[in-house]
Amino acid sequence: MKTRAWGACAADRALQAMDIERRAPGARDVQIDILWCGVCHSDLHTVRGEWPGTLYPCVPGHEIVGRVSAVGAAVTRHRVGDVVGVGCLVGSCRHCAACAADLEQYCENGFVGTYNGPSADAPGHTLGGYSQRIVVDEDFVLRVGHPAPQLAGVAPLLCAGITTWSPLRHWQAGPGRSVGVIGIGGLGHMGIKLAHALGAHVIAFTSSAGKCEDALALGADEVVVTRDAAQMKAQRGRCDLILDTIAAPHDLNANLSLLKRDGTLVLLGVPAQPHPTPNVGNLVFHRRALAGSLIGGLAQTQEMLDFCAAHDIVADVELIRAQDINQAYERMLRSDVKYRFVIDCQSLAG
Amino acid sequence: MKTRAWGACAADRALQAMDIERRAPGARDVQIDILWCGVCHSDLHTVRGEWPGTLYPCVPGHEIVGRVSAVGAAVTRHRVGDVVGVGCLVGSCRHCAACAADLEQYCENGFVGTYNGPSADAPGHTLGGYSQRIVVDEDFVLRVGHPAPQLAGVAPLLCAGITTWSPLRHWQAGPGRSVGVIGIGGLGHMGIKLAHALGAHVIAFTSSAGKCEDALALGADEVVVTRDAAQMKAQRGRCDLILDTIAAPHDLNANLSLLKRDGTLVLLGVPAQPHPTPNVGNLVFHRRALAGSLIGGLAQTQEMLDFCAAHDIVADVELIRAQDINQAYERMLRSDVKYRFVIDCQSLAG
Repeated sequence: MKTRAWGACAADRALQAMDIERRAPGARDVQIDILWCGVCHSDLHTVRGEWPGTLYPCVPGHEIVGRVSAVGAAVTRHRVGDVVGVGCLVGSCRHCAACAADLEQYCENGFVGTYNGPSADAPGHTLGGYSQRIVVDEDFVLRVGHPAPQLAGVAPLLCAGITTWSPLRHWQAGPGRSVGVIGIGGLGHMGIKLAHALGAHVIAFTSSAGKCEDALALGADEVVVTRDAAQMKAQRGRCDLILDTIAAPHDLNANLSLLKRDGTLVLLGVPAQPHPTPNVGNLVFHRRALAGSLIGGLAQTQEMLDFCAAHDIVADVELIRAQDINQAYERMLRSDVKYRFVIDCQSLAG
Repeated sequence: MKTRAWGACAADRALQAMDIERRAPGARDVQIDILWCGVCHSDLHTVRGEWPGTLYPCVPGHEIVGRVSAVGAAVTRHRVGDVVGVGCLVGSCRHCAACAADLEQYCENGFVGTYNGPSADAPGHTLGGYSQRIVVDEDFVLRVGHPAPQLAGVAPLLCAGITTWSPLRHWQAGPGRSVGVIGIGGLGHMGIKLAHALGAHVIAFTSSAGKCEDALALGADEVVVTRDAAQMKAQRGRCDLILDTIAAPHDLNANLSLLKRDGTLVLLGVPAQPHPTPNVGNLVFHRRALAGSLIGGLAQTQEMLDFCAAHDIVADVELIRAQDINQAYERMLRSDVKYRFVIDCQSLAG
């Protein structure tokens, strides 16, 4: 089935309109007419070949909300007309220890990404959500309970939301726990909202004094300008858990120092160049940990979507047409977005 | 009370016999005639001024076993004639959150080290176990349940033992868990013995092919020569927990790769120069953690001593006289000891 999409034919080419093929739904497939697709920094890294292994043509997009337009004969979990979501994964091996533990993102045989993953469909790799339509195995399709006017803000939950939710849950954010969120962007603004809704005491850390009011409005109890040495010093030893959303190389020691004894600094971004090495004493003398976390599994993503629907949580978004994507990338590189671009995929019909 | 000791008057001076003063026991004090004192690498770092802040004269030694020779009027936990131990700590604030949690080693106001710590006694800093006698607050004195012939091997439990026991307990080593121990020296040989006795599957990692038989005899289920790339590759993703006992700067990525998803690499040594920076992807893609751990609190040290007495565990030691300490340091620097030197403190009487 011919489907209009936006993607790139090479690393050095702008994104452009293109026609791609979607398979006819198999017995276990759900066909989704895409309403909204969030724009993640990973999209830009991949489409521009900044990470190794990009396959072209590349159609990015893994923050997808749409409406079911067809289902295969064996599908039981979704029906035509349902509003659903698709995140970063459209497949995994389903039999390794990670998959058995509902942690498909750590599939030991390699998960299938929503774009740039292996696929039997043309052109041999998966194509993502900057498109009119997608066909996905029902097990990788999430239920969306938010009302229609909120759906654009739901799209970023499928990556930015689950990427912050998963470590908040794994390291038990909640009442009586102090959670730091470093960086107030696509990930960070969701980290603040979710940690606050979970009942944690939230301390936001930003390099931009101009974002302090926003941080408080998003749900932070305190906000710290990281360039202010006195403010940073006053926060030493205060956090049980920190979500570090900064992907660029930066000083981990300053952030480790913010942790209490037994606290954990969780890195959510993978920098192209490594961070300066952390001070071992900063770990040993307070039994602190430096950890990493990757998106989340299907069950936890559903848990997050249900929690957000119940707590009236969506991402703060700026809506764009598909035709605006190249300018949006340039603005994203300047952090000039509050806090996520979302493509109105109905613009693809034009 | 004049007491014979061995220590150094300056960073560039060999250790020599010297007379020091011990206070008369106060109401809560225990006076201990020292039988055995283990030789820890920290002793050498401190006495040679390789870490900042060494105060001279410096009498090292924090792996102390002896017999109570006097007690203060208010002492309730120890009696004259008891065999007791003193480890790395002889004081802490006793009212911070760490002390309240029996984690005096993380005392927020700074613990008092058994040597080179602040003291009201002459010469204004604490003097350690390379001596005939020591006077310690009863709360920092441990009970020793081993029989007399084993007591020399008990001494290293007070530092090398608790330094490995504490992370094994904190990160729940036991049946069904796979524990890696990197480096087979003073710490590592205790890590193997204790992890094995706790019921974990133990994988020892050594750069010395000559230590493989020893590792198995100490209780390892498997032993890996780290210079053998094929052996290392075969161990990828196999450990739930790794105790990394190597203090010299080394490649953390090779060690992180040995961890399963959700595994933790615990650094027990603080290198003088930092390790090369770890690969963030090695953390993020498997939700691994890099952590540190410092000795252990008093309650956990007592737990470890009781466990070792019940399981017939002591360190493997080579006995020396105090007069041999300078040569022992040179051999320790060449890792030419299996696996801990212990000073026979009765040699100080000569």
